[in-house]
Amino acid sequence: MGGDFAPFEVVKGALEVRPSDGLEVILVGRTEVINEQMSRLNFNGSRPSIVEARQVIDYHEPPLKAIKEKKDSSIVEGMNLVKRGEVNAFLSAGNTGAVMAAALMCLGKLPGIERPAIGTLYPTLKGTALMIDIGANVDCRPNFLVQFAQLGSTYTERVLGIKRPRVALLNNGEESHKGNRLIRESFSLLEKSGVNFIGNVEGKDVMHGVADVIVTDGFTGNVIVKTSEGLGEAMVDVMKRAISDSLYMRLATFVFKPALKVFAQKFDYTERGGAPLLGVNGNVIIAHGRSKSKAIASAIKIAQQAVEHKVLEALKGEL
Amino acid sequence: MGGDFAPFEVVKGALEVRPSDGLEVILVGRTEVINEQMSRLNFNGSRPSIVEARQVIDYHEPPLKAIKEKKDSSIVEGMNLVKRGEVNAFLSAGNTGAVMAAALMCLGKLPGIERPAIGTLYPTLKGTALMIDIGANVDCRPNFLVQFAQLGSTYTERVLGIKRPRVALLNNGEESHKGNRLIRESFSLLEKSGVNFIGNVEGKDVMHGVADVIVTDGFTGNVIVKTSEGLGEAMVDVMKRAISDSLYMRLATFVFKPALKVFAQKFDYTERGGAPLLGVNGNVIIAHGRSKSKAIASAIKIAQQAVEHKVLEALKGEL
Repeated sequence: MGGDFAPFEVVKGALEVRPSDGLEVILVGRTEVINEQMSRLNFNGSRPSIVEARQVIDYHEPPLKAIKEKKDSSIVEGMNLVKRGEVNAFLSAGNTGAVMAAALMCLGKLPGIERPAIGTLYPTLKGTALMIDIGANVDCRPNFLVQFAQLGSTYTERVLGIKRPRVALLNNGEESHKGNRLIRESFSLLEKSGVNFIGNVEGKDVMHGVADVIVTDGFTGNVIVKTSEGLGEAMVDVMKRAISDSLYMRLATFVFKPALKVFAQKFDYTERGGAPLLGVNGNVIIAHGRSKSKAIASAIKIAQQAVEHKVLEALKGEL
Repeated sequence: MGGDFAPFEVVKGALEVRPSDGLEVILVGRTEVINEQMSRLNFNGSRPSIVEARQVIDYHEPPLKAIKEKKDSSIVEGMNLVKRGEVNAFLSAGNTGAVMAAALMCLGKLPGIERPAIGTLYPTLKGTALMIDIGANVDCRPNFLVQFAQLGSTYTERVLGIKRPRVALLNNGEESHKGNRLIRESFSLLEKSGVNFIGNVEGKDVMHGVADVIVTDGFTGNVIVKTSEGLGEAMVDVMKRAISDSLYMRLATFVFKPALKVFAQKFDYTERGGAPLLGVNGNVIIAHGRSKSKAIASAIKIAQQAVEHKVLEALKGEL
């Protein structure tokens, strides 16, 4: 029920998952609304089962209040399915704060973790890097960042199959003395943390795939991810305009569309989705609020990967 | 003498300025080295005058120590030319910390300003926005951000000719309760600061030109600007590769090059340069360390604009 284009795009994304993909999708929300979407989509396959939840938490509701007052919301209900072991993972494109609060309330934190964090697979020229935290914790202490590094390292090792992932600290310079107080203090803690810490990385180098895990506080991470998103969209826009101004316009659409597609697949955050909430005792995936069906389908895959690669079990074993 | 491609590109950039541009360039550094570059460039016009400075401050030198020990460096010497009123503005692509330290030592701060800040004209789909601070102050207090807003507002009004520039606070959400502690506290101070404060702006909206001045702490600003830089470069790279993989390659270069050029002009930070250091008692422009001649020429224009639009006089009058 959550997300700017819910329920239509969420349902559509869920229906794009085939039984052959090796997983089953269960939809949580108002049965009649969900069925209506499926009819609208002329969906004739075997319909996913629905778990009824009457309430909806709005984007603007204060998270804590919302989850306490709306026990029958799709977010709280979905989280309880995870808690009771009835599903392996829960995914939502709704109110991020409410998803986090519900995860903490229903599932709790993993031992040793003070603050769960949201990671996202950030595109680089060589593949992807996990950026963590991108918004769960806007005010951080150095030990939080060490925990983000551990969570991110294990996730990346499991899901991307990278042995001893290279962990870097996002900073305004490469030298160890650079950075604000938080980053400088985190640097020395990370050196003795046990993760494969390779030092600081500057914004311009993230793109070049110099690290597998990029550690940052949730404020900076959020601003970075959203700026990248805006920049990606703006660039596509500028390119399109430049092309349509050109004399070779007709020719161009021919040549240009495939290139633009490659570009969008790599940088368009509305097509890619699914940020794991790491550090809670369950698999929870946060999808972008602006998710369309493609992003929802992508987020479902992210959830599947986390389950199949036993991220949670690995985290429990290591922390 | 400063910058990754100095002295060649710096001298080349300086020579691109014509007498008809209405300004005179003076080069500060080792006379024989500068003359050598001009000969290498086969420059036959009337050569700019040179102020001899024997020492060079390296990129990696600790700023304070460097400016104290190297009084005869191009940075300190250039700053003294401003102090003595022999030049209207000083520009350097060298060690940013040293430029700032020298500015504080030689010129001092403007009354009421605790921390000078670096602004940069960030490209948007509608033009540009001044982002301030992008690196002078990595640890900020709320009143610093208010001062950045005032400095940025006056600069934008003068240089871009925008009446009552819209000032926004870079944040991880639009609502006033969003943000880390610094941003939340700065928000309420900005509301009563006298600048035309329009509230928070998210990373994704900066690009859409929703504000004329984007206020941020120097850590976040620096990471944002460098990430944008890396992303811009990466995107051009991805596009070029997509094009060269295409069957229509030959056709493409025809259509594509003009589009890529528009793109690069807007987003390639190596082509655009010149970030004013605002809040010191003189016109000081910081050029990107990776500046090539185009960026140096662009930075010289930024310096000229600041002088012609009497930014310093306006700041002194308003603060």
